[in-house]
Amino acid sequence: MTADERRPLRSAISHSTPDCITVRGLDLAADLMGKVDLGEMAFLELTGRLPGEGESVVFNAMLVALVEHGITPSTLAARLTYLGAPEALQGAVAAGLLGLGSVFVGTIEDSAHMLQDALTGVSAGAELEPIASGIVRDYGERRRHIPGLGHPIHRAGDPRTERLFALAGEHEVAGRHVALMHLVAVASTQQSGRQLPINVTGAIGALASDLDLPWSICRGLGIMARAVGLVAHLSEEMHHPIAAEVWRRADAEASEADPDAT
Amino acid sequence: MTADERRPLRSAISHSTPDCITVRGLDLAADLMGKVDLGEMAFLELTGRLPGEGESVVFNAMLVALVEHGITPSTLAARLTYLGAPEALQGAVAAGLLGLGSVFVGTIEDSAHMLQDALTGVSAGAELEPIASGIVRDYGERRRHIPGLGHPIHRAGDPRTERLFALAGEHEVAGRHVALMHLVAVASTQQSGRQLPINVTGAIGALASDLDLPWSICRGLGIMARAVGLVAHLSEEMHHPIAAEVWRRADAEASEADPDAT
Amino acid sequence: MTADERRPLRSAISHSTPDCITVRGLDLAADLMGKVDLGEMAFLELTGRLPGEGESVVFNAMLVALVEHGITPSTLAARLTYLGAPEALQGAVAAGLLGLGSVFVGTIEDSAHMLQDALTGVSAGAELEPIASGIVRDYGERRRHIPGLGHPIHRAGDPRTERLFALAGEHEVAGRHVALMHLVAVASTQQSGRQLPINVTGAIGALASDLDLPWSICRGLGIMARAVGLVAHLSEEMHHPIAAEVWRRADAEASEADPDAT
Amino acid sequence: MTADERRPLRSAISHSTPDCITVRGLDLAADLMGKVDLGEMAFLELTGRLPGEGESVVFNAMLVALVEHGITPSTLAARLTYLGAPEALQGAVAAGLLGLGSVFVGTIEDSAHMLQDALTGVSAGAELEPIASGIVRDYGERRRHIPGLGHPIHRAGDPRTERLFALAGEHEVAGRHVALMHLVAVASTQQSGRQLPINVTGAIGALASDLDLPWSICRGLGIMARAVGLVAHLSEEMHHPIAAEVWRRADAEASEADPDAT
Repeated sequence: MTADERRPLRSAISHSTPDCITVRGLDLAADLMGKVDLGEMAFLELTGRLPGEGESVVFNAMLVALVEHGITPSTLAARLTYLGAPEALQGAVAAGLLGLGSVFVGTIEDSAHMLQDALTGVSAGAELEPIASGIVRDYGERRRHIPGLGHPIHRAGDPRTERLFALAGEHEVAGRHVALMHLVAVASTQQSGRQLPINVTGAIGALASDLDLPWSICRGLGIMARAVGLVAHLSEEMHHPIAAEVWRRADAEASEADPDAT
Repeated sequence: MTADERRPLRSAISHSTPDCITVRGLDLAADLMGKVDLGEMAFLELTGRLPGEGESVVFNAMLVALVEHGITPSTLAARLTYLGAPEALQGAVAAGLLGLGSVFVGTIEDSAHMLQDALTGVSAGAELEPIASGIVRDYGERRRHIPGLGHPIHRAGDPRTERLFALAGEHEVAGRHVALMHLVAVASTQQSGRQLPINVTGAIGALASDLDLPWSICRGLGIMARAVGLVAHLSEEMHHPIAAEVWRRADAEASEADPDAT
Repeated sequence: MTADERRPLRSAISHSTPDCITVRGLDLAADLMGKVDLGEMAFLELTGRLPGEGESVVFNAMLVALVEHGITPSTLAARLTYLGAPEALQGAVAAGLLGLGSVFVGTIEDSAHMLQDALTGVSAGAELEPIASGIVRDYGERRRHIPGLGHPIHRAGDPRTERLFALAGEHEVAGRHVALMHLVAVASTQQSGRQLPINVTGAIGALASDLDLPWSICRGLGIMARAVGLVAHLSEEMHHPIAAEVWRRADAEASEADPDAT
Repeated sequence: MTADERRPLRSAISHSTPDCITVRGLDLAADLMGKVDLGEMAFLELTGRLPGEGESVVFNAMLVALVEHGITPSTLAARLTYLGAPEALQGAVAAGLLGLGSVFVGTIEDSAHMLQDALTGVSAGAELEPIASGIVRDYGERRRHIPGLGHPIHRAGDPRTERLFALAGEHEVAGRHVALMHLVAVASTQQSGRQLPINVTGAIGALASDLDLPWSICRGLGIMARAVGLVAHLSEEMHHPIAAEVWRRADAEASEADPDAT
């Protein structure tokens, strides 16, 4: 290998000198700390620019909506992991994050993907109804569930969705992707006869798209928000543990000798 | 096992009904989304109450300070993981978080632990200088490094520390733990002859203590903040990858046949 | 919720009493320890029965083939993680495993999936050439790479593949899936004009299929084998570290201020 | 930075050429595959040499003993993770491994550490009883539990321990560390009045020490063995799932609104 064959390593996010840390071209201590909140910092990290006022409200609300959903497979996995490895809080949080895959928060990515693919190359004034109908028909033919629609608990409507769309309207952040998501929900009801409201991941996938975030990173919004919630669950687990009891009960029931054996 | 032997499972953080998600007693959609930022939501999750205005500025600044520090072992591990498993963004973030242990962000926990232990049961008006001297002497006798002091890059002073303490002063958030951390730094210089400034993890450990966060959860502040930064690094890796080249170079150099062999 | 609504929890793998641990119906201490090796134990865990003599040789060889491949993204991620969290060896191994996704060992799963789907419902005496041609045509039309063929380093032939197929022949373990994999390689060369030999993951995917392992678990063979290799790399890292130097070089090059800036 | 400041990157475990993969100086395809089992391969990876016949039996038995212990916090965490991210088997295994910390398999490391520290610099013919008494006294004074003694289920004696020591005796593998572990158990009973038998992690810590494995890597034996068991549990979860039911029950009980609230 010669030096010429080397491909250079470059990262444009941040660099440090002994007396300054620069993030996306801004001085971390002077320009950011004390001036931007954690949601705005996340926006800067992902997009390279600080959000406008309305964008900040909506983007923070998107993340706030995803922080917490009580006892989930993810928070249980984190608590069970802490039980065996209390020396490594980072491991318990990581275990919790590992369950944020295609079934749960991955649908943010899937709905953003669906919407961004559908609008790529589509002119600004194009009618969206036929596009929505085409999406619903296509998913139906492939017998696949449309991402971002329906919720096992919040069946009549996800309270987070309504709030997000209200905020986005108020702050003029919603654009064509949100409009298309609404039309997909309408077309889905028309074609299937079942009313499946837009859930929080569908709303966030649409809003993230209107904020120009590429679909491939949208799962990351759920990951960063849930990291906050997981730390809180581990804090509770330290003082009011449930993992040992969950384990004891599951083991007692699942691992007992076959009751039909003689 | 009888039903009586069961210990109840309880979590006080959040519960959901079909039309409402409650977090720490507040309605997520109505009371939090659009009204609190992600840092305030983290404060609520951890402490059970919303921060005051000054607390919000300082707590957000603490988290913002921890989001990003460029190319680190953690961001490299995340990028290398993404190279092999692009289908699972959550796995790459988790891999990055797993390096946030005792050597790097764990010092937030260690400095908070040191300060909280030293002030437990100490009356409000007690003099702090003797306590600080005692801490420094104790670490010296055990030949251990005092957590929260010194930084390999920011040797003359960590720019984040000064900014955090300035904000904490301005917003009247700093208390006895911050005062003690300053005195520990002074006593360390006096006893060792070397000037080791308070680094960002020492400052955050002290401030978190003055905000009544138990030391055992303080590592979690670094974990939640770095989750944000890791998602941004993975977003950059998708479009301007460096992991494959880091691997290629390391493998070419480290795995070549022994050059002295014949 | 009433008791009637509960779905029972059952696991048939193992149960314990105070004086006996049973695994797949066998007494761990009396029947397995000292009598079976780790590869045979893995076979028992996955299939519910102990392997025959030839199956043991071949299955152990499949796992042995996957343990080690030097400095990889996976071993680098593990070493970088250990640098920050030496208190948690499990975290460093986990970080290394997280890169064993769709790009690297996931191709074991993909090739097994391809072969098992192709032979489902196909009668024992059916000709395999047309099936192989159909597979190659189908992948070509979808412009997708055929899993299990080709290797970036072992271009002329993967030495592990030849050895695995020789052992399988000698011990009469190879069946229709291995035969089909060979025919797929031939058909691929005929249709594309390029010779892409079967790589180690293709060979293992085919052999695992002939051993009746479902494709959905085949990625697990690589995961369990690499866990062994990762522990060895971390043992070396403890005494002859490279992670800090890999980091230092990457950071120095990637994070420097833009050289073109003035 | 100049080239001179660079520290070389070296790894002695494995290197590859297009037609050969070398592991610890042996040809993977020609010398290892088909000739050594997975446990012997692990021994080679860790120590740099192949085990003798007796060492192979005992080392395989040590690993076989650790593969499986039914429904544990670790297997539950893996199953819960799979529920949310079935696209990434590696993530579910990693989540399971993350719980193998100080509380469970970490005691292999702790007991090996205790024994190796106690015998460092001690001449071959030295009496071990006083050393054992000293260990027990020291742990008693520090009010710490002696690692490797006692088990919550196998109270009268761990069946795996007896079997391991019998095999080690038969194959003449046991040495001074095993002898010291026995004496520590005796001294502990004498000093405390309670009989705490050596558990499987104490036995393995002692045997690993007699096999010259450094204590710092001993946790890794549990990690590599449990990786095998975790893949089997995930295979069962795919066909006979329990994670969703464990979650449903825990959530229903833990997250319900406070029953005492009005």
